[in-house]
Amino acid sequence: MTSELAMIGLGVMGRNLALNLAQHGRTIAVFDRDAARLQAMAGTARITTCAAPAAVVAALRPPRTVMLMVPAGPPVDEAIATLEPLLTSGDTIIDGGNSHFHDTRRRAQRLQTRGVHYLGLGISGGESGARHGPSIMAGGARPAWERVADTFDAVAARHDGEPCCAWFGGDGAGHFVKMIHNGIEYADMQAIAEVYAILRDGLGRPADEAAAVFARWNEGELQSYLLEITADILARKEGADALVDLIADRARQKGTGQWASVTAMELGAPAPTLAEAVAARHVSAAPERTILARSTPQDRSWQTAGILAATLADALLGARIAIYAQGFQVIAAGKEAYGWPELQLAEVARVWQGGCIIRARLLDAIRAGFSAAPAAHLLQVPEIRSMLQRVEPGWRRVVGAAVTHGIAVPALASALAWTDGMRTARSGANLIQAQRDYFGAHGVERVDRSGEVHLDWSAKP
Amino acid sequence: MTSELAMIGLGVMGRNLALNLAQHGRTIAVFDRDAARLQAMAGTARITTCAAPAAVVAALRPPRTVMLMVPAGPPVDEAIATLEPLLTSGDTIIDGGNSHFHDTRRRAQRLQTRGVHYLGLGISGGESGARHGPSIMAGGARPAWERVADTFDAVAARHDGEPCCAWFGGDGAGHFVKMIHNGIEYADMQAIAEVYAILRDGLGRPADEAAAVFARWNEGELQSYLLEITADILARKEGADALVDLIADRARQKGTGQWASVTAMELGAPAPTLAEAVAARHVSAAPERTILARSTPQDRSWQTAGILAATLADALLGARIAIYAQGFQVIAAGKEAYGWPELQLAEVARVWQGGCIIRARLLDAIRAGFSAAPAAHLLQVPEIRSMLQRVEPGWRRVVGAAVTHGIAVPALASALAWTDGMRTARSGANLIQAQRDYFGAHGVERVDRSGEVHLDWSAKP
Repeated sequence: MTSELAMIGLGVMGRNLALNLAQHGRTIAVFDRDAARLQAMAGTARITTCAAPAAVVAALRPPRTVMLMVPAGPPVDEAIATLEPLLTSGDTIIDGGNSHFHDTRRRAQRLQTRGVHYLGLGISGGESGARHGPSIMAGGARPAWERVADTFDAVAARHDGEPCCAWFGGDGAGHFVKMIHNGIEYADMQAIAEVYAILRDGLGRPADEAAAVFARWNEGELQSYLLEITADILARKEGADALVDLIADRARQKGTGQWASVTAMELGAPAPTLAEAVAARHVSAAPERTILARSTPQDRSWQTAGILAATLADALLGARIAIYAQGFQVIAAGKEAYGWPELQLAEVARVWQGGCIIRARLLDAIRAGFSAAPAAHLLQVPEIRSMLQRVEPGWRRVVGAAVTHGIAVPALASALAWTDGMRTARSGANLIQAQRDYFGAHGVERVDRSGEVHLDWSAKP
Repeated sequence: MTSELAMIGLGVMGRNLALNLAQHGRTIAVFDRDAARLQAMAGTARITTCAAPAAVVAALRPPRTVMLMVPAGPPVDEAIATLEPLLTSGDTIIDGGNSHFHDTRRRAQRLQTRGVHYLGLGISGGESGARHGPSIMAGGARPAWERVADTFDAVAARHDGEPCCAWFGGDGAGHFVKMIHNGIEYADMQAIAEVYAILRDGLGRPADEAAAVFARWNEGELQSYLLEITADILARKEGADALVDLIADRARQKGTGQWASVTAMELGAPAPTLAEAVAARHVSAAPERTILARSTPQDRSWQTAGILAATLADALLGARIAIYAQGFQVIAAGKEAYGWPELQLAEVARVWQGGCIIRARLLDAIRAGFSAAPAAHLLQVPEIRSMLQRVEPGWRRVVGAAVTHGIAVPALASALAWTDGMRTARSGANLIQAQRDYFGAHGVERVDRSGEVHLDWSAKP
């Protein structure tokens, strides 16, 4: 019996996606080097377990489609090397893992010369998303995508009846959008963690009370998957303890947030709050932290600051707006730099509305804004601007209080500084230009004439 | 007549370094593809102008030393390709430009197979430093360095009688240290520009009054080259106008600050304030800024905040400490990652005490601290810690006021958040770990037992 699709790699994401595909009527041949993982899939309707990559490929009718769900990096190249001799022109390899988009670009371009199509699929939603409906960001040769689009539309999350699945352009466009998704995810998580720390350490709220605050916010304009799970997490108990209090505060990372931050810099469209979130995870894991904390105890109580939960909500929404604005700015820059004219910001917002980790009500306004003005900067979107104006006083109050009382809020503060910077008509950067020209003869632009000049700094005033 | 050293590339840095070398008794053969630049050097004592690279090499007695002062990137590879057939085993190529240390590592390793030594020299001090005494950070094969060390010691800046010149390790160690120098430079410049913006827009001080403030600070513990030139710049007039007011506030960059930020991330030792400074330059040049500024005018007056110049000085010193701490943390990480056991943090501080752009009195305490405890984190150094404790209240007040009044202070705020984060015994990162485990099954560490576990989040509480 032949299968429609092969899947190699049955980790958390691969296994659940395979089950999701099978449930939607797709026949799948699966393989994993780990016999136990493979065995766990045996007997599932429409899933054929295969003992080797060659058997997986043999189970398909040409043109074949083989999907990789293996860890990013060398395992993907190894899997491709294994598959190449087994595939022929017209076949398609799909990489559904968290590959770096530069790797996807390289692989797509190389395989194209052999006539093998290569699609890079960013899949977000974690374990549960993969099983019940993820958000899918596709890139690669359009004809190859069109052959499989129905399949992925079918298993993707739905938002207002539409599948949260779209193709964004050639080669690495899908993995690029997914990488920015993850960068936004890091920053939004960091902002939430900072607000949680303020609730806990600044306002002295126990976890269950903080849970109630997040749950209430999740009913309104802050509604998002990350707030929903935050409320759930904070409500969990283990005996008399809040479970969250038993978890070590050393955050790990798998690198995609860092890729997003580095790419943003390389594109000349920095996303400083995304970078702060990456740094904050490293700070949380820095061994020096405990030593230094012991030697300089902080006054963590700020009951006197009179910060209310409503004000914290303003700070969180303000930060989220800035974080999304930075992310979409990077996507707009990537679209230009890597040649993906089909990449539409409104379509990215649409695909993120369901299934993925960063799904949030805010995306409704973002999608509407970019639909109306596809080339706008997010901070120019009228609805976003009026939101910002509304939350600005509370946001400033929260960051000001955190700064006063020594609670570290790198994301909330960076997002505010960036937003202020983007709205500053006359910044202090004229001094920086003067300094650069003074010591390095790099030239300056003047406000009163065009072109660049090197000023003579040698003559003392 | 033979020369001791050849120099290829007579731009601002190359020309001035050649003049410096000649003034110190060295004989130099020089070449530049630009005939005008070459011609401008003709007739200088101890300098021989040569019409082609081959002539430059022919002017040397073996073993030959050819120094490149050409723009980083392809021009360096092109120059090496030109030189290679002209050089023999035992000869040395020195790259004195702002090359990326990864490029220097690659070039050193490749040329080593041909028996040609390769030294990467980070040279800081701008035009005037190159001419009168730069800070020199060397890396590459030690025997090759020892042959030329006297020459570079002679032309380097002096601090307390010692040459600000040292060798830090193999291949790219010198360019690595120089890259971090530049990252610190970006961040220190940004912090100064933010304080300047507060003086100008928050406190309404005209440029000449701001100049006096910076000049006064430069007499004390904030003393530094960048403050000195800031005071000078702000005092300059053009007719009735302050010159700085005629300069456009669009800051440019050549990329070394970005390299430092990216490398810090790659090393798992993020330098968020360095990254904020890079981002702030991009923000200053973002075309959207003016549009957005028009639509949301800010109240920039904060006379009521009662911020005094003394408080601003605290903020600037606090930020500078954090910026240096981040930079030295990256150097410590690079030393491990790239295998430069000889790299001593105290020696880096010593070489930065004179000649370079970031020379500052603060380096006295840093050097003493790392001399006493070579593997310490800068924030652990007792003198640094007591400085921090002293400036902390003022620093918080300044950032709080800027945040309240909408003056963008990404560097001052990031530096404070990072310092707070590094001294936080219990952060909010436990929530981040819980979130990651909740949606991605990434596992958590617990505070009450060792090892990593995946918690069961499926059962509702």
